Amino acid sequence: MMSPAMVRGAVRPPAVHGYSHQREEYRQRLRRIEGQIRGLQGMVEENRYCIDILTQISAATRALQEVAIGLLDEHLRHCVVGAAATGGDEAEAKFVEASAAIARLVRS
Amino acid sequence: MMSPAMVRGAVRPPAVHGYSHQREEYRQRLRRIEGQIRGLQGMVEENRYCIDILTQISAATRALQEVAIGLLDEHLRHCVVGAAATGGDEAEAKFVEASAAIARLVRS
Amino acid sequence: MMSPAMVRGAVRPPAVHGYSHQREEYRQRLRRIEGQIRGLQGMVEENRYCIDILTQISAATRALQEVAIGLLDEHLRHCVVGAAATGGDEAEAKFVEASAAIARLVRS
Amino acid sequence: MMSPAMVRGAVRPPAVHGYSHQREEYRQRLRRIEGQIRGLQGMVEENRYCIDILTQISAATRALQEVAIGLLDEHLRHCVVGAAATGGDEAEAKFVEASAAIARLVRS
Repeated sequence: MMSPAMVRGAVRPPAVHGYSHQREEYRQRLRRIEGQIRGLQGMVEENRYCIDILTQISAATRALQEVAIGLLDEHLRHCVVGAAATGGDEAEAKFVEASAAIARLVRS
Repeated sequence: MMSPAMVRGAVRPPAVHGYSHQREEYRQRLRRIEGQIRGLQGMVEENRYCIDILTQISAATRALQEVAIGLLDEHLRHCVVGAAATGGDEAEAKFVEASAAIARLVRS
Repeated sequence: MMSPAMVRGAVRPPAVHGYSHQREEYRQRLRRIEGQIRGLQGMVEENRYCIDILTQISAATRALQEVAIGLLDEHLRHCVVGAAATGGDEAEAKFVEASAAIARLVRS
Repeated sequence: MMSPAMVRGAVRPPAVHGYSHQREEYRQRLRRIEGQIRGLQGMVEENRYCIDILTQISAATRALQEVAIGLLDEHLRHCVVGAAATGGDEAEAKFVEASAAIARLVRS
């Protein structure tokens, strides 16, 4: 039996969004980050020392940014390069969009 | 019946770590961030557009940093100022520790 | 009469590095940032209030990051897309290099 | 003969702003950063490779942030702790101000 995502994948091929072949890896990394955030809730609940909590927040933030950098890499390799090959307004829109995403990432 | 944290709290009062009176608020903010991270897993699973995922990662990162800035504020108000009143090596250690936490936060 | 840069430009065409047609704009932005840094030295010399100095440092940092985001945009549009069209090891090297530059920017 | 800053210093003692005893060190670090920014202008003028320019921007950004972290450390040790000893509205204002400066730094 196929999952809804697989059915959807059959209609809109996974390769479209570039990161699909590494989708499982990204999900696992996000699951680990979810565990870190749950761990942080436990630390707050147990009234743990602020600095230890801040160290864990820095680690989770860093892990999130690494996921973002990986996704961006795949986006550039697939969507942006693909649009650039086509050229025109669509290519321009992809460059503007990618730069805005990089800017948000740098500032967050 | 008392939870382990309450027992510990009875020995070492929660006020020691400064952020205790806002503990519930921090837990709720972290719970929302946990929900954002779970939402990100769903987006990856559904093969959603990279840029939309990156926007959500920036939002979660920002929310995490706001928790960190809030905790740091409480840490400065309580632990650091308290140690500074005592003075000596302990005060120096607290300043060094707080600056290192700020540096990690700025760089993550 | 031609400036040394124009002469050099005649040998190695400016378009090679993508950002050339906006070179003058980037130089002006960097000159303004240089002025901000000189202003910071004056503030320190005049023993100005720490928080005002920190506000200026944040402004200069932000201005530097905007230059970086602009240069990265041009780099993606020209060098990376160009290498991707060629394909092979060179394209791969450009993607790896661009992602490393984005990672350094996000972490600094 | 006294410089305007020295005259001002005689009226409002340098120790007030905490970082005074390290003022010369901060000026030197800012002078080095000014040199890095001038070097960046030269790199743009010479049409140097984008990635090399981005690496230098990351280095200058990092150096600026280290100055900021150092100044913040001194500000906490002197102004904030001093205001906290006095207490009241002034102490509260100092904490709010310091947290806002940390937030700007984290986000820039």
